[in-house]
Amino acid sequence: MAELSFESDYVEGCHPQILNRFMETNLEKLPGYGMDHYCQSAKEKIKMACGDPKAEVYLLTGGTQTNQIVIDTMLDSHEGVIAAVTGHIQSHEAGAIEYTGHKVLTVPQILGKLQASDLSALLDAYEGDANRYHTVCPRMVYLSHPTEYGTLYTLSELTEISRLCRERGLYLFLDGARLGYGLMSRQTDVTLHDLARLCDVFYIGGTKVGALCGEAVVFTHGSTPAYFFTKIKQHGALLAKGRLLGISFDTLFTDDLYFKISRHAIDMAEKMKTILKEEGFRFFLDTPTNQIFIVLENTFYQKLTERVRCGFWEIFDENHTVVRFATSWATSEEDVEAFAAVLKELKQVSI
Amino acid sequence: MAELSFESDYVEGCHPQILNRFMETNLEKLPGYGMDHYCQSAKEKIKMACGDPKAEVYLLTGGTQTNQIVIDTMLDSHEGVIAAVTGHIQSHEAGAIEYTGHKVLTVPQILGKLQASDLSALLDAYEGDANRYHTVCPRMVYLSHPTEYGTLYTLSELTEISRLCRERGLYLFLDGARLGYGLMSRQTDVTLHDLARLCDVFYIGGTKVGALCGEAVVFTHGSTPAYFFTKIKQHGALLAKGRLLGISFDTLFTDDLYFKISRHAIDMAEKMKTILKEEGFRFFLDTPTNQIFIVLENTFYQKLTERVRCGFWEIFDENHTVVRFATSWATSEEDVEAFAAVLKELKQVSI
Amino acid sequence: MAELSFESDYVEGCHPQILNRFMETNLEKLPGYGMDHYCQSAKEKIKMACGDPKAEVYLLTGGTQTNQIVIDTMLDSHEGVIAAVTGHIQSHEAGAIEYTGHKVLTVPQILGKLQASDLSALLDAYEGDANRYHTVCPRMVYLSHPTEYGTLYTLSELTEISRLCRERGLYLFLDGARLGYGLMSRQTDVTLHDLARLCDVFYIGGTKVGALCGEAVVFTHGSTPAYFFTKIKQHGALLAKGRLLGISFDTLFTDDLYFKISRHAIDMAEKMKTILKEEGFRFFLDTPTNQIFIVLENTFYQKLTERVRCGFWEIFDENHTVVRFATSWATSEEDVEAFAAVLKELKQVSI
Amino acid sequence: MAELSFESDYVEGCHPQILNRFMETNLEKLPGYGMDHYCQSAKEKIKMACGDPKAEVYLLTGGTQTNQIVIDTMLDSHEGVIAAVTGHIQSHEAGAIEYTGHKVLTVPQILGKLQASDLSALLDAYEGDANRYHTVCPRMVYLSHPTEYGTLYTLSELTEISRLCRERGLYLFLDGARLGYGLMSRQTDVTLHDLARLCDVFYIGGTKVGALCGEAVVFTHGSTPAYFFTKIKQHGALLAKGRLLGISFDTLFTDDLYFKISRHAIDMAEKMKTILKEEGFRFFLDTPTNQIFIVLENTFYQKLTERVRCGFWEIFDENHTVVRFATSWATSEEDVEAFAAVLKELKQVSI
Repeated sequence: MAELSFESDYVEGCHPQILNRFMETNLEKLPGYGMDHYCQSAKEKIKMACGDPKAEVYLLTGGTQTNQIVIDTMLDSHEGVIAAVTGHIQSHEAGAIEYTGHKVLTVPQILGKLQASDLSALLDAYEGDANRYHTVCPRMVYLSHPTEYGTLYTLSELTEISRLCRERGLYLFLDGARLGYGLMSRQTDVTLHDLARLCDVFYIGGTKVGALCGEAVVFTHGSTPAYFFTKIKQHGALLAKGRLLGISFDTLFTDDLYFKISRHAIDMAEKMKTILKEEGFRFFLDTPTNQIFIVLENTFYQKLTERVRCGFWEIFDENHTVVRFATSWATSEEDVEAFAAVLKELKQVSI
Repeated sequence: MAELSFESDYVEGCHPQILNRFMETNLEKLPGYGMDHYCQSAKEKIKMACGDPKAEVYLLTGGTQTNQIVIDTMLDSHEGVIAAVTGHIQSHEAGAIEYTGHKVLTVPQILGKLQASDLSALLDAYEGDANRYHTVCPRMVYLSHPTEYGTLYTLSELTEISRLCRERGLYLFLDGARLGYGLMSRQTDVTLHDLARLCDVFYIGGTKVGALCGEAVVFTHGSTPAYFFTKIKQHGALLAKGRLLGISFDTLFTDDLYFKISRHAIDMAEKMKTILKEEGFRFFLDTPTNQIFIVLENTFYQKLTERVRCGFWEIFDENHTVVRFATSWATSEEDVEAFAAVLKELKQVSI
Repeated sequence: MAELSFESDYVEGCHPQILNRFMETNLEKLPGYGMDHYCQSAKEKIKMACGDPKAEVYLLTGGTQTNQIVIDTMLDSHEGVIAAVTGHIQSHEAGAIEYTGHKVLTVPQILGKLQASDLSALLDAYEGDANRYHTVCPRMVYLSHPTEYGTLYTLSELTEISRLCRERGLYLFLDGARLGYGLMSRQTDVTLHDLARLCDVFYIGGTKVGALCGEAVVFTHGSTPAYFFTKIKQHGALLAKGRLLGISFDTLFTDDLYFKISRHAIDMAEKMKTILKEEGFRFFLDTPTNQIFIVLENTFYQKLTERVRCGFWEIFDENHTVVRFATSWATSEEDVEAFAAVLKELKQVSI
Repeated sequence: MAELSFESDYVEGCHPQILNRFMETNLEKLPGYGMDHYCQSAKEKIKMACGDPKAEVYLLTGGTQTNQIVIDTMLDSHEGVIAAVTGHIQSHEAGAIEYTGHKVLTVPQILGKLQASDLSALLDAYEGDANRYHTVCPRMVYLSHPTEYGTLYTLSELTEISRLCRERGLYLFLDGARLGYGLMSRQTDVTLHDLARLCDVFYIGGTKVGALCGEAVVFTHGSTPAYFFTKIKQHGALLAKGRLLGISFDTLFTDDLYFKISRHAIDMAEKMKTILKEEGFRFFLDTPTNQIFIVLENTFYQKLTERVRCGFWEIFDENHTVVRFATSWATSEEDVEAFAAVLKELKQVSI
């Protein structure tokens, strides 16, 4: 019996079509360091999908690595990046941004999202500060979309933040580690074309959306740092066998696979949400993507985890815990039905 | 027709057994960040192969990344690493070591190898320098084995360097990006057990020896830096899907696959060397591993490259060029025969 | 006529006795880099004043430099320093701490002070976090004493914070850029001996307490980082003519000069506070040291600054501004009387 | 009796006129952080002396600090600085350049000087390297003038190096820690105007030429890094009491004091060289500045150091040692005569 797990969207390997492409192309002799035609093709397809033929695309391995390299190479040494206090770069990257010399300047969050008004207030405070030359210069805004809480910016919110960034001379950087799930949400009005238009740089997450690893960084509006290839090498992030990333993204951006598998994960998440609502579970917050946050009574939580793996999120109060369920390309209808059956069974028992 | 290429040992994908394992295990739900049982199993097998059950093994993605993280986390901020002037960290890593704050202190090389006498002289000079507290403190020796020229240290040389390091309180770090080819050379007396005994840290290269990516770092003699996991994360080098590396190394260290494919590459290289010698080609230097360096007359070089891809190494003189041929697990007897045929044909033409 | 200025405690040069010592010793030939007997003598006197003969003392040039070097050399790369959100390292050092790779972890402040309960909560959250190995490890607490608001920790508060640090394995670092004014406050129960006992490292500020420049770092409990001298050099902070700092601190710690001039500044500040209270001015907060924060109506503020220089602190509301008056060793009774006269005169006019 | 010491040019305090200015201005209330009128005046005078009204001047504290900040702020992260193997940044700054992330690329030296031909060869090799995007990009040339051996570049040499730098798009940076002695040498054809014309940045050393501390960095041709003030702060190098440096350089550049005291040191050195030649001492190399390098027989060296302090330079052979004698503004005719007397006396004894 396949184990039931909704622990995260990276518990399985990769989409089978990627493995098949690895098989088919395995003996093809390719130049190293991302100079192969699969990398080239992947980049072209991504530019097309973004509707931005002038964009420049680079393929990196993971999310923290991408955040670190993008921020470090786009910012001058005295410049900092603004993020919500819940932003991944602020909380869960082991100081990777500071390691490269840059301060993360924080603003409050609402549902994991940074507010344009808080951003504006921070910039006003900086510009109005007589001692501002003794402080870090805010120069980039970092958003995650979906956020760490699975929530999404609206097109209107992104447009307002982008406008502010341009007025004030800041780069807008969007962390799309789970971007597929954001774009395929039933409750979003944001497209990939919008991101290419509104951001200066963003990435299309592969690791959490069907690849074994890989994030595709898209620089728009001519924002690619000089000698970016050399800087990737200098950060220890250049793969000799670039084909690993090239074939992965070429596959994901052939016949809309990236979008289809993201949509599938959304469909499965919506089913699970319906079941959870019907069974009367308490939602920690309402999310339009592939992550579901539920408040569980602790005894029930113990029993559930004997049957279904899920992610511990945080302690809610002394009797309750917040847990996270995530779906992915690999979540099947059967998994969801089995999940529903377990819930029903445990609920009956617990009554 | 398969193209004939000996450009490097990373032009193909990975050994088919690794791909098969990816296929078989793809839907298995595994914890992230290297906490899965494949990583665990790979590490155990590697420790066994090293004959050092107390060793600690970590899996990283690439060579430059590994050199950067090992050196940066083992050295204190004022400490530097000693390397031959031809060492990879000195010449071809885009300043990755200096990027993390450490100086590479160079000594001369002979056939790509650092000499114990030069090392000793550098250490004497440091210790005898009245101003040494104004200088970088030498604290680690970096060797590549095989070297950048495909040459190998003898057991006696390694023993002498190791002894010096221990007497003077330096770490000995061995870059084994191509270690398999070194261990399986017909002209070596060095074993993996020797490395575990003589070094404080070394790595077993996967990227250039059959994996899609991956280097297995082995810390011996209790030398693992504190909080090494967090530091990997901080350097942007932690993979969410650690299975990519775990399965790769678990496969390579099952039934001696790593050694068998390395031996195969050596066998193919030896055949090519025999052919090249018979045809009267000039060897730039004599190498006991999978890299062959040949001095070609430039007209011949042009003609050859229309038929066979090889690596440009350096200009020899105004009429000659040094090229490199490399074999790998994927080099077949047919490739070698086709190579021989091309050589014969071109030689006849050129006469 | 001498201009009336209370803009800060570093608007004048240095205490005349220091200049006299410079004169007297100017032609004495001394070894460089702090190896001279004045540095030695200054260090001995400071250790005596701290009641800690085992302490180690180093002389650096300025406050930001000292914070940067102490934090960077005491922390391992994955470790961060905890500070109040108003801490100088968080707000006004241009990212100097992050520049060296370390994150500043913030806790709330009350009157510029970090609370033991907030510190404890942060540490509990870290230790209870299942993902803590993906986060920065809190390893040092940074306090300023006096704080950026001129307030002081009580002995009981310091003891509680120190106890917490020891229990949890954190270093306690106290920024004493204005330490003299803290120690000589009429409302403190904290002595230099207490600091040596409770902290692992702290510094005795010279720049703002009578020297042209200089901060004396005191490492206690064997906490001096290895090769600290070399690390000072590596940070670009080693003075060739160490006598500049040695003579300054030797003078300040001869016959209690440091304490006498600090006490003098406190006496002058107390007189000014009495005058300001009598004249009915509104205190932004009550401070026991040499900094006085007053809320001024904006028209009055404009008039006042034509006669007396003071420091702009922040906007209070649309009609009021917070200003800072600071006294120093150079503030005379005549200055204070002239200040009182100006206040009276302007108040009459403004009525 | 005043002790006889020629150990270095920083064994005394500072020129008495600087101390006098400190005295006269001590109670003047000045704004902090180099915003005072003495800093302003010093900068204007320096620009005038350089014949470059568009230059921008910044005052820093010491040589290593200046090298570190200039190199780090002018170079992009993947760029390196070229220096002679004997360059101060390569050998005696405890890795301060690498600490900020930049590699020092070395070329051979002749009499401490980098050769245009070696520079050209390094740049050709970089540009001709097919793998150059995997290597550090050479972007700045670092010269010391006088060099670490007290030697000087000729105008013709500097012009050639400057021309090469401009052709190849490199910055030319000249370390003038002892610049006064170079400019006042009897054997130079290089003026301050030449340096402003040929370099992109250079500094006028104060610490070793009459000040207690201080180096005046001159950026020419619009080369000042953006937000340089903030970057100085971020590097921990901003003095609160900028007057220390402002008054020092304002004094040194009033009535040509800087040049007069440098000339005096040269005159004293020339006298000493004449005496040493007359007495038949062996010169290690011939220097046109204030540093004299002599090869002494070891027994004689022991005896001499009981009477005269000099600097140990290096071991010459098993029976001989190279020592350095340095003069400064403080070296008197009496000192030189006393030195001559000691030499004569010891020579007679030793015969």
